Amino acid sequence: MAKTILLAHGSGGKLSHDLIENNLVPPFSNPILNKLDDSAIFELSGRLAFTTDSYVVSPIFFPGGDIGRLAVYGTVNDLAMCGATPFYLSISLIIEEGFPMEELKIIVNSIKEAAERAKVKIVTGDTKVVNRGSADKLFINSSGLGLISSGVNISGSNAHPGDKLILSGTIGDHGIAVMSQREGLKFSSSIESDCAPLHELVTEMLEVSQKIHCLRDPTRGGLATILNELAKQSNVGIWIEEDKIPITNPVRAACELLGFDPLYVANEGKLVAVVAPEDTEAVLNKIKQNQFGVNASIFGEVREEPKGKVIMKMTLGASRLVDMLTGELLPRIC
Amino acid sequence: MAKTILLAHGSGGKLSHDLIENNLVPPFSNPILNKLDDSAIFELSGRLAFTTDSYVVSPIFFPGGDIGRLAVYGTVNDLAMCGATPFYLSISLIIEEGFPMEELKIIVNSIKEAAERAKVKIVTGDTKVVNRGSADKLFINSSGLGLISSGVNISGSNAHPGDKLILSGTIGDHGIAVMSQREGLKFSSSIESDCAPLHELVTEMLEVSQKIHCLRDPTRGGLATILNELAKQSNVGIWIEEDKIPITNPVRAACELLGFDPLYVANEGKLVAVVAPEDTEAVLNKIKQNQFGVNASIFGEVREEPKGKVIMKMTLGASRLVDMLTGELLPRIC
Repeated sequence: MAKTILLAHGSGGKLSHDLIENNLVPPFSNPILNKLDDSAIFELSGRLAFTTDSYVVSPIFFPGGDIGRLAVYGTVNDLAMCGATPFYLSISLIIEEGFPMEELKIIVNSIKEAAERAKVKIVTGDTKVVNRGSADKLFINSSGLGLISSGVNISGSNAHPGDKLILSGTIGDHGIAVMSQREGLKFSSSIESDCAPLHELVTEMLEVSQKIHCLRDPTRGGLATILNELAKQSNVGIWIEEDKIPITNPVRAACELLGFDPLYVANEGKLVAVVAPEDTEAVLNKIKQNQFGVNASIFGEVREEPKGKVIMKMTLGASRLVDMLTGELLPRIC
Repeated sequence: MAKTILLAHGSGGKLSHDLIENNLVPPFSNPILNKLDDSAIFELSGRLAFTTDSYVVSPIFFPGGDIGRLAVYGTVNDLAMCGATPFYLSISLIIEEGFPMEELKIIVNSIKEAAERAKVKIVTGDTKVVNRGSADKLFINSSGLGLISSGVNISGSNAHPGDKLILSGTIGDHGIAVMSQREGLKFSSSIESDCAPLHELVTEMLEVSQKIHCLRDPTRGGLATILNELAKQSNVGIWIEEDKIPITNPVRAACELLGFDPLYVANEGKLVAVVAPEDTEAVLNKIKQNQFGVNASIFGEVREEPKGKVIMKMTLGASRLVDMLTGELLPRIC
């Protein structure tokens, strides 16, 4: 067997079939995928959530994860942020000619483990190979399909004045982990990506409250950006408190050293929930019982004004406007 | 506005939002997409078909189409080949830093026109930007969702001995069109890609026959490869006749000149149908009435033996084994 990916692995012909049948189908084996027709076919009925994301993270291996795990959990989380239970995922690979077969196997195994952990099935896929220099190692697209229970109505446009904001844990871990790996930086304590599947946490939250109005995971653009999205979509003001935002000392130190504002650094296993005030404590307590929510905190609230804006009360008492990320802090973070 | 794509257009922050809200949502505007939540949400019930494909064609503009049109029709056709009516598509862009904004607009418009022509809605999307040299201009993933009517049971594993094979038109047009554009070749008559949506044709075929057993579009790897796939999946022998396979004179001449076997050259708007013998004429006549099927032909049949193989009776009388594509004829053809 070839030790690296050849152009012919993307030809659609014999080598493509060998790669698919030997390396790409067996790890994910299930009756829907195994049919190998042009589409996956299954019965599914109700209110569906459908999402897509392409992953171009560099480097593809980083502390706490790799591009494969990210591709599964990232898409699972996009479904979870609409209150959907994820069911089916597609995986589409764009591979650079010369990519080591051993690394592909590691990443495929990582996709397999993440899909098992998240209880989703990989049901369809695609593999393209581009000539050397036309892509950087490996890009992965995963699209996902989930089902939303009746009664659940979560949207970025549902925040109401009076609602409280809960953050499920510390910020900045993913961005700093990837960046430190990329730049070869060593911090005294290792910082790992928080890459994690959040749909079970969301299910538990929905068990204790029917008044979760918005959910969003602060990935690219960080916490500041998604708060701005919510403020704009719901046409409300969002007020947050700096000292209620959980952050680890190593991430804080790394951000200070590098001149990054942690509000703009990417996360992969955190969520922000906007919840009616009467349910906030119950939801917070439920989040704290989940392994991905032990550091959860109520960190802000929704007001009428200033519409479409985010205001942060700083630790020393002053308040400042928190804008959406402008420019680019860390390219290819996810 | 920037004249080229900047890294910050993929940051998730302000420039990403500007690009999405000004350039990527308005052309596809529909109530599901416009919500801009992490997933598209809609009601859909029944037997679903779900498929994904990444498009890496080079060059991105070619006679008869571009990467945008290809991304819509290719995914629509993967749904149609399972007998599904396509409903919803996702579009995920991986753009190289420096890509001209004008070209992006042309391709987005091409996606819009193709989606309208195919009567599908773009309901969710994603945009990533990678640094210069880390991708070649633009890659597009599109995933699709369709609905299969009850009673339709089409699969590559359903071919039965006695079934006839119908090809909906001439072969090799797409591959030769892309290749000639890539290499700057000029043929006396211009050869255009056959890139086209085939789901309406499939619907019309299903109106006249409940005995369409397999459908497949001979894209990467060409006609020879998909016939081998069908022979293997159904564990049957497939016998075809060389002089029944439609091909235009310019494509035949280009293949002779370049040393290509047209059986292995990619198509984008053709299908092979495996149909029970008693329904073959009715299906053929129906295909010929569709604009994408005027040159349709019955070109072969299914036999018990040789299992998993494809045999072609040549124009001069001898027969030869037709293998799956080995190696790579034309990289990045789709």
